[in-house]
Amino acid sequence: MTAETNDALVIFTPSGKRGRFALGTPVLTAARQLGVDLDSVCGGRGICSKCQITPGYGEFPKHGVTVSEDALSDWNAVEDRYKRIRGLIDGRRLGCQAKVMGDVVIDVPPESQVHKQVIRKSATERVMVMDPATRAVYVEVEEPDMHEPTGDFERLARALAAQWQVEGIEADLSVLRRLQPVLRKGEFKVTVVLHKGNHDSVTRVLDIFPGFHEGPLLGMAVDLGSTTIAAHLCDLTDGRVLASSGLMNPQIRFGEDLMSRVSYAMMNPGGDIEMTRVVREAINTLAQAVAGEAGVDPASIYEMVIVFNPVMHHLFLGVDPVELGQAPFALATSGSLSLDARDLDLTNLNRTARVYVLPCIAGHVGADAAAVALSEEPNKSKDMVLIVDVGTNAEILLGNETRVLACSSPTGPAFEGAQISSGQRAAPGAIERVEIDPVTKEPRFRVIGSEVWSDDPAFAEATKAAGVTGICGSGIIEAVAEMRMAGLVDPGGLIGGPDQTGSARCEPHGRTFGYLLHDGSAEGGPRISVLQGDIRAIQLAKSALYAGARLLMDEMGVETVDRVTLAGAFGAHISPKHAMILGMIPDVPLEKVTSAGNAAGTGARIALCSVAARDQIEATVHDIHKVETAIEPRFQEHFVNANAIPHAVDPFPNLNGIVTLPEVSFNPKSGGDEGGRRRRRG
Amino acid sequence: MTAETNDALVIFTPSGKRGRFALGTPVLTAARQLGVDLDSVCGGRGICSKCQITPGYGEFPKHGVTVSEDALSDWNAVEDRYKRIRGLIDGRRLGCQAKVMGDVVIDVPPESQVHKQVIRKSATERVMVMDPATRAVYVEVEEPDMHEPTGDFERLARALAAQWQVEGIEADLSVLRRLQPVLRKGEFKVTVVLHKGNHDSVTRVLDIFPGFHEGPLLGMAVDLGSTTIAAHLCDLTDGRVLASSGLMNPQIRFGEDLMSRVSYAMMNPGGDIEMTRVVREAINTLAQAVAGEAGVDPASIYEMVIVFNPVMHHLFLGVDPVELGQAPFALATSGSLSLDARDLDLTNLNRTARVYVLPCIAGHVGADAAAVALSEEPNKSKDMVLIVDVGTNAEILLGNETRVLACSSPTGPAFEGAQISSGQRAAPGAIERVEIDPVTKEPRFRVIGSEVWSDDPAFAEATKAAGVTGICGSGIIEAVAEMRMAGLVDPGGLIGGPDQTGSARCEPHGRTFGYLLHDGSAEGGPRISVLQGDIRAIQLAKSALYAGARLLMDEMGVETVDRVTLAGAFGAHISPKHAMILGMIPDVPLEKVTSAGNAAGTGARIALCSVAARDQIEATVHDIHKVETAIEPRFQEHFVNANAIPHAVDPFPNLNGIVTLPEVSFNPKSGGDEGGRRRRRG
Repeated sequence: MTAETNDALVIFTPSGKRGRFALGTPVLTAARQLGVDLDSVCGGRGICSKCQITPGYGEFPKHGVTVSEDALSDWNAVEDRYKRIRGLIDGRRLGCQAKVMGDVVIDVPPESQVHKQVIRKSATERVMVMDPATRAVYVEVEEPDMHEPTGDFERLARALAAQWQVEGIEADLSVLRRLQPVLRKGEFKVTVVLHKGNHDSVTRVLDIFPGFHEGPLLGMAVDLGSTTIAAHLCDLTDGRVLASSGLMNPQIRFGEDLMSRVSYAMMNPGGDIEMTRVVREAINTLAQAVAGEAGVDPASIYEMVIVFNPVMHHLFLGVDPVELGQAPFALATSGSLSLDARDLDLTNLNRTARVYVLPCIAGHVGADAAAVALSEEPNKSKDMVLIVDVGTNAEILLGNETRVLACSSPTGPAFEGAQISSGQRAAPGAIERVEIDPVTKEPRFRVIGSEVWSDDPAFAEATKAAGVTGICGSGIIEAVAEMRMAGLVDPGGLIGGPDQTGSARCEPHGRTFGYLLHDGSAEGGPRISVLQGDIRAIQLAKSALYAGARLLMDEMGVETVDRVTLAGAFGAHISPKHAMILGMIPDVPLEKVTSAGNAAGTGARIALCSVAARDQIEATVHDIHKVETAIEPRFQEHFVNANAIPHAVDPFPNLNGIVTLPEVSFNPKSGGDEGGRRRRRG
Repeated sequence: MTAETNDALVIFTPSGKRGRFALGTPVLTAARQLGVDLDSVCGGRGICSKCQITPGYGEFPKHGVTVSEDALSDWNAVEDRYKRIRGLIDGRRLGCQAKVMGDVVIDVPPESQVHKQVIRKSATERVMVMDPATRAVYVEVEEPDMHEPTGDFERLARALAAQWQVEGIEADLSVLRRLQPVLRKGEFKVTVVLHKGNHDSVTRVLDIFPGFHEGPLLGMAVDLGSTTIAAHLCDLTDGRVLASSGLMNPQIRFGEDLMSRVSYAMMNPGGDIEMTRVVREAINTLAQAVAGEAGVDPASIYEMVIVFNPVMHHLFLGVDPVELGQAPFALATSGSLSLDARDLDLTNLNRTARVYVLPCIAGHVGADAAAVALSEEPNKSKDMVLIVDVGTNAEILLGNETRVLACSSPTGPAFEGAQISSGQRAAPGAIERVEIDPVTKEPRFRVIGSEVWSDDPAFAEATKAAGVTGICGSGIIEAVAEMRMAGLVDPGGLIGGPDQTGSARCEPHGRTFGYLLHDGSAEGGPRISVLQGDIRAIQLAKSALYAGARLLMDEMGVETVDRVTLAGAFGAHISPKHAMILGMIPDVPLEKVTSAGNAAGTGARIALCSVAARDQIEATVHDIHKVETAIEPRFQEHFVNANAIPHAVDPFPNLNGIVTLPEVSFNPKSGGDEGGRRRRRG
């Protein structure tokens, strides 16, 4: 301690920032002057408690100081009252009340930092910095004065400039309408919700409350897919997910895949408007649902970030998607958008809520792919990463820190269990895991909703409620891969007959064969088989996916990739081994195939919590090189070659190192000839 | 001509700008490089004809050049076709087609200038520079390219940046919705309506048309008064007024004056919302009316500028005016506002139309006073000017180029014929001019709708249709002033009895007297008299007006003003002499009292046509010093002194030089004691 001088050394941890301050300087003031990230909503008035700090006492050889017990001013009445009423962790002080009285080391706990780092639970455990567009601040406004007659709003603006360095504010008429009564109710002390997006030159006042207000400040991240809509309700102060919910996209009744919806719009005047209406309604319903789950008023949702493929993008915005159905697949707008929720009829959010739409990459590669790029950051990867977002349309990114490529590939809905004879959406009762004994050719499986395998005596009881109803997307992939491994399917995709395979489960179905996976007829349930047509549907889908990836590898000039990330809700359920046996993805060491979960939704959440992330993804999207599969002649070639299981020409050395696929052939001519048909997008 | 060189001298008139340009340079290009104000909507493609110029040939000693007949390139096919189809004034060329081939003098006719100077018909004949926020430009957009997949909107933005130096555009969803079909219909050549207000950091695309489009580009200037609403439909390319229309303010049914409307809002929950609704509806009706009169679609109205007093300001914006009814008279917002018309329910304008609201000066001095300041520019006056906007509330400005003061004064509706026994609004049948013979004390008068005086034998026939129904605002002022000149009313405001005045027209009415102006009872019409109460009402109104002016003179430190401007629709009809006899305004030479007509409406039009004017009035309002009459003790004193006709203490030397007012007194005690009551605002 330097009792002889009038100032003292203050060292903040973990930042390590240090400086000398006059004795009596509040810790918050010192932190601000040094640029230390110490939160405060009330501006140092001892109300909000956001500026809690932990002083360290004793010897700090690392910092070269000794901190005496009286290095900070004594507890004052504000802190006493705060601790009594609201509680304060032992050892904590309020940074705005505690004053520097001697050399001191001050630790800023994570929850007191504005730019908290939030650990995302993902394969890569990246940290995320809070930098939200929307925040709340407490401000004390000058009272009106007849002799200096400025408006209440102008005095609020002046106070925000002086107390929070916020310049250039604007307010919606609904806020202006409430301004005078709220100011007077709060005796000219108010909490305002401010919003400034990454392209905004002004700061919007979204809401105003009398006095110090600690109500929820929420945002909603939405991943609007062709089939499902997922919403996450997030706390904009710390990034926590308070609730998540999903809905089927109600546009499904206008068409299962994207192209049938575009056709619907083309053939039915006003059809696009109807599709816009129902999808906006669904998002309103989701807002209500997540708010209900979290037990908050949906009017506390001040911001929404939304990602989607280009057709969903247009239909959500109210733009006819017809141009996306034909070359050159021109987007009405590709850039990011900042919009008023009410212009989008999102009436369940706060009336002033803002909506940020991530940029699209190209006419077939949407804002959802941009969100995947934001979440998985291929542009920061040292090794060559292939990221596949598997849905009705697959969106594919390939690259590393020097260059990133993107394309989309029309896999169709087979991976989601559609266009499969016994296919169904992932729901209780759907077969999701399959194993086939290579010797007996007998299967065993598991259904969604139960952990018990079908060869377990407890299976019947465990699945009594939901039954065994069909096969979901991951189930059909495993089934086909297992059939290939068991020698029931040849490299060309043909199912062998009972004579060829030695299994009575290979039953004739017309001129081809099907493999009986489960016979529930005795209990009144369905007979579930994998038919030849199902194998063909999976072949078409996986060929499209592989061909897209291969096209990007050509463009990148590489023959192999270092790792593969499977994104999309479905990606989480695909077994890497089975995916590789099918030849869905290029050959890599199995441990290099990881799942990123719903990376598009994660990307939406990152953008919701950070304006810097918005700048970042806009720049990244600008740099991503887009490859259009529809016009690339080599796509067709790759597609045909990829029809074989796993592949007609490409070597799969890693795969061959772990499994040996039986050399069978059930057709005198070579297989794969039926795979040449090109499937439409969707 | 300088045939030997590769360049030539080009001189533009009237600007006098000159420069040397390579032979073959189009005149438009030369003009742009020199910063000559030469219009072009199509960007030099020979479509819009806005860049017409007139080359001068022969000797120009003033400029030191001789222009040969071949100084410009020959007529080309574009010009030929243009002249054939659409006509071109002899001697004119299209600046984008004619190329410089030798030294030349080029005149830019006024209609080819973007920043046209428009002569305003007003007392001061000021010129007005066109500088509108909204304009139309023709632009050629790159077609979409699969290999460079940007959105159509982003390519439009790029084209606007390259061809018009417009950076940072934004579009409403309704424009985005129409973008793709319009671009394709126009083969990627479109005309866009752009808007950039004086505070905007982005340029909004308000509308888009295929190809080159010359539809009307209109704005509406609205003066929303307590009693009447006036709208002017203006061409935003040249400032012309295409149509004007007026309506009674439908809020009158909630209260005649402002304070009764504030009371209505206070006593009836939702009353303010109802008043907001009806006034917005009225503006929609007016938009329809002016568009109908001009024969255009109201959707061509892209912009509106509106001015009003503070209570109307709040009620229009949907803000409860309750705070304006009590000290400290705090405005919810005092600054200028830029809003979306649809947020104000102005559905009859274009869907994307913008609304600019002039700033208010203080809680009692509104945007209408700001508009008067913009129109009359007291801040640019060399002499000390008093500007009085006479309405239900009088707004008063006093100042010169060094300083401007403002206040409002609660004159009440007496000047508009309300609260007068035989009063009526200005309409056919209302007495508007009065003369009383000082010897016989007999009156003669004229009614609105006829030029014939009542002592003319043709009067009965001329007024048969409308009859003689009452007295309007200007009529009552003249009547009272004439009664004072004829010795029928004493300086204290008392009407003499028949014995005192020698006129049988001075009839007893209870304990006081009234002067019979017209007896229409024989024809079944009314007996129209000026009663003692009417004199009192006028005294209260004129005392408030004079006291306000006098208060500003005190603050300014002057005893006299150099000139007086009467603004407001009513101002145009007040005779300066009668106004001064009444003591409404301070004594100045009669020829120094002028009328500015509806200066508030003119100010709104100026702001509509120029963003620079918006900057200017915002700066002016900031500099104007506001004086609050309600809290100024001297106001009361001035008010009492001003009760006498013309005044109890202030000398009126100019008035005394032209009239001699009879020294009469009809009360043994001195007059004026009844005038001390203070009227409420309204």
